[in-house]
Amino acid sequence: MKKNIKLVLQYDGTRYHGWQKQGNTELTIQGKLEKIFQEMTGQVTEVHGSGRTDEGVHALAQVANVHLETDLEPEEVMAYANRYLPDDIAVLEAAEVSERFHSRLNAVSKIYTYHIETGSKKDVFRRKYRYRLGKSLNVANMRKAASYLVGEHDFRSFCGNNKLKKSAVRTITSIEIEENGTVITIRYQGNGFLQQMIRILTGTLIEVGLGQREAQSMKALLDEKSRQAAGFTAPSEGLFLEQVFYS
Amino acid sequence: MKKNIKLVLQYDGTRYHGWQKQGNTELTIQGKLEKIFQEMTGQVTEVHGSGRTDEGVHALAQVANVHLETDLEPEEVMAYANRYLPDDIAVLEAAEVSERFHSRLNAVSKIYTYHIETGSKKDVFRRKYRYRLGKSLNVANMRKAASYLVGEHDFRSFCGNNKLKKSAVRTITSIEIEENGTVITIRYQGNGFLQQMIRILTGTLIEVGLGQREAQSMKALLDEKSRQAAGFTAPSEGLFLEQVFYS
Repeated sequence: MKKNIKLVLQYDGTRYHGWQKQGNTELTIQGKLEKIFQEMTGQVTEVHGSGRTDEGVHALAQVANVHLETDLEPEEVMAYANRYLPDDIAVLEAAEVSERFHSRLNAVSKIYTYHIETGSKKDVFRRKYRYRLGKSLNVANMRKAASYLVGEHDFRSFCGNNKLKKSAVRTITSIEIEENGTVITIRYQGNGFLQQMIRILTGTLIEVGLGQREAQSMKALLDEKSRQAAGFTAPSEGLFLEQVFYS
Repeated sequence: MKKNIKLVLQYDGTRYHGWQKQGNTELTIQGKLEKIFQEMTGQVTEVHGSGRTDEGVHALAQVANVHLETDLEPEEVMAYANRYLPDDIAVLEAAEVSERFHSRLNAVSKIYTYHIETGSKKDVFRRKYRYRLGKSLNVANMRKAASYLVGEHDFRSFCGNNKLKKSAVRTITSIEIEENGTVITIRYQGNGFLQQMIRILTGTLIEVGLGQREAQSMKALLDEKSRQAAGFTAPSEGLFLEQVFYS
């Protein structure tokens, strides 16, 4: 029986070349999952993710879906996958959904979080889950800069793919910046994000926090529509896909 | 100038064959530190730890001391070490102490914590820092069993070294068992612990929690003075050396 199974996935991206399958399927999250479902059903399957996470990016709750020819219940599919998946990828939930559900096309909003360690002390237990900047940041200025980025804009200046032909217009509904001790967390929510957009936004906000850019310069930066105008691409280890919303 | 430097160390034990240096110094915490201080001073040094942690055991605040011939201030020694140590070992504090201070001989008490995941869900971000039991435990019975273990006892039944010639008498001042969601944490404080003692105590308490042993059997177990009488050795990944106290 053909079933469309929605999966909620958690992964530590450290070892992987991102979500999307490439030559060596062993090194991508999508490749790992497709291999297991192929062994389970004896058929080639495609696992659709809500979005591609880059090399080294983590997920607390990525959403995917897969059409499987199987008599197994969703909980059994989950148990099977968790038995054969490596320790750094987990299926947290599995449910049968309507045939037409598509994890990427039906996603209406996503939350990504980025963690920055501003202190100089090493933290060996979080070393793979924080960007270790080791410098203090002016959070008030970062919040001011972020306020110019919220809303519907052409985010071409914040896109890692400079050959992008399609529209770069996206809506960021909120950017929240929290301080917990020496860790600064930036939480982005929006209807969709371009390639490396969160990391480039973060790198740019860090440059504002370091006093290298003015908060007010964000408007002009958006208007330039050029990757060269924005800040550096913050490293992938600090980034988590936190939640995906459906209508 | 000869200085006795006290160090507070944090490490993720996953990659290491424990604290104590062995043939290949690259694979022990002590070996890593001694190599760096030898390069720093040009002299062979010995780093004394407050105790040996086993293969795979972690430390939040291990204490060590080292006699160094150096003009560097303790903070500079710390910065040097952190620059050359791998990401999974950190020096959190460094201070000059009296010539006679010895991290092991002067330690009066230690706290170890052991984390058990009783739920069936995988947690990819804590997979190296929890024992994944995946079964529920009767915590009330575990607390009752623990009450028989607190105090001064001959802990030979809980010693991984069955050729131990010295006294196995130790004092456990407290065993606290906390539940946080599906994670159970056992916190042991005492004046000293035998080889693998915490892991064997934990394995035994888990067997009580699973209903495989009676809480009341702990007294007879201590009296047997035989490793065979106690429970299994809980795996190292759940164990953290949390704090070392000096008078």
